Amino acid sequence: MNKLFIVKIGGNVIDEPFALASFLDDFAKLSSPLTGHGAKCVLVHGGGKIATAIGEKLGIKPNYTNGRRITDDATVDLVTMVYGGLINKKIVAKLQSLECNALGLTGADGNIIPAIKRPVKDIDFGWVGDVESSRVKVESLQLLLEGKFVPVVAPLTHDEQGHMLNTNADTIASSLAVALSSYYDVRLIYCFEKKGVLENVEDEHSVIQIIDKEKYKRLVAEEKLFAGIIPKIDNAFDAISAGVKEVLIGDAKDILTNVGTNTTGTLIRN
Amino acid sequence: MNKLFIVKIGGNVIDEPFALASFLDDFAKLSSPLTGHGAKCVLVHGGGKIATAIGEKLGIKPNYTNGRRITDDATVDLVTMVYGGLINKKIVAKLQSLECNALGLTGADGNIIPAIKRPVKDIDFGWVGDVESSRVKVESLQLLLEGKFVPVVAPLTHDEQGHMLNTNADTIASSLAVALSSYYDVRLIYCFEKKGVLENVEDEHSVIQIIDKEKYKRLVAEEKLFAGIIPKIDNAFDAISAGVKEVLIGDAKDILTNVGTNTTGTLIRN
Repeated sequence: MNKLFIVKIGGNVIDEPFALASFLDDFAKLSSPLTGHGAKCVLVHGGGKIATAIGEKLGIKPNYTNGRRITDDATVDLVTMVYGGLINKKIVAKLQSLECNALGLTGADGNIIPAIKRPVKDIDFGWVGDVESSRVKVESLQLLLEGKFVPVVAPLTHDEQGHMLNTNADTIASSLAVALSSYYDVRLIYCFEKKGVLENVEDEHSVIQIIDKEKYKRLVAEEKLFAGIIPKIDNAFDAISAGVKEVLIGDAKDILTNVGTNTTGTLIRN
Repeated sequence: MNKLFIVKIGGNVIDEPFALASFLDDFAKLSSPLTGHGAKCVLVHGGGKIATAIGEKLGIKPNYTNGRRITDDATVDLVTMVYGGLINKKIVAKLQSLECNALGLTGADGNIIPAIKRPVKDIDFGWVGDVESSRVKVESLQLLLEGKFVPVVAPLTHDEQGHMLNTNADTIASSLAVALSSYYDVRLIYCFEKKGVLENVEDEHSVIQIIDKEKYKRLVAEEKLFAGIIPKIDNAFDAISAGVKEVLIGDAKDILTNVGTNTTGTLIRN
């Protein structure tokens, strides 16, 4: 099977123009047939603080119920506009200037990610979409990938009834990774604020290069891992159980420049 | 050659939710392989007043020089967000709910419409893109069309240097029509506020069904046409000279329901 890298960047990178420019430079190199391991690539991006800033100016107040953020009518329009328009097209235009054939998408475009509006239990989350990887339109994505496009996916889906939905970018990245793993040898790369999984939380240089199930059990038993990383690793193993080859997590600053060498970030695999 | 319909709707339709919903219903039928003449379709949409309304709330003041609107930094972000995000994705989500496999694009996506930032002569128009149909990426569009996607194109292009550009929707529609006319039998359909070209400006029922060059010359000589329609007809004949098969102009309310029957709108052809 051909290699496919699915790379997710979060709001922390998007909010800093220099960090974003440098990251996109690395991504363009990774996705180039000349410099990029011959792998196809997908970029999934998060939101960032800019939506909140624009929302404030528009008088759209963050709406919370029991401490949980609700996506009301005004908010779904706001994120559709900011994530699907402003951020997505800025990334696409920048990548195009770097000879990367980026094509921006939301889950509604080509119906690539149909979602279900989250059912109301204790809380009505509003226009939030839950995704199942089995419903991802793999044929449409394949067509784009084989057509030499580099999909750039905003954290938005739709309900197939005409409404856009707000969906977590990590969830979109892992759903795409799992769905595409039947057709590609998928490496899922999560960029976050740390260099990787740390052996010693106090020491940024103590990055663990490789974690497999055995090692993970041992680290958990020894209580070495900081709490925040555990759900990320659990999610990574879930993706691997569902067919994804490997998950790499590390810092957007350098994670893409050394893919395949195990010199940056933490590689999670079976 | 296969038939291709390129349909352009303006802001007047976009600004009215009911008119838009009804138009999209007709467009979905036209683009369906079952009900739509077996033609492939592209939809190009304009902006509408919503960008101005959102801009006002964000404190972005329309910027004019010598009476001409300038696209400054704040304005290009605004239109990228509103045209490329809010309007484009609402249209896409709605079409998807009608079983039309819409895929939203700006000229930056897949580099389908590279443009030149308008050169400064008397006025610096700012981030405005001028398009040449010879530079449209026909292969990318073909790939999408043959892949059963229905491109929905926002009035935005890019400069290939990382900047989005504001481009007139009529220009985008005619550039795409001309560029694609080497590969498809292209019918360009412009929706506007009138039922078509009127023989008598006072009488909405006096729509001229077909205009060819001869008839056009005669109508101009007889001073029968109202001034506003002449540039539209000139543009239509320009597109036809450049390879487009026919141009149909008429009211968004009914123009798509009778395509091919010559019962609504005015058909302009050689």
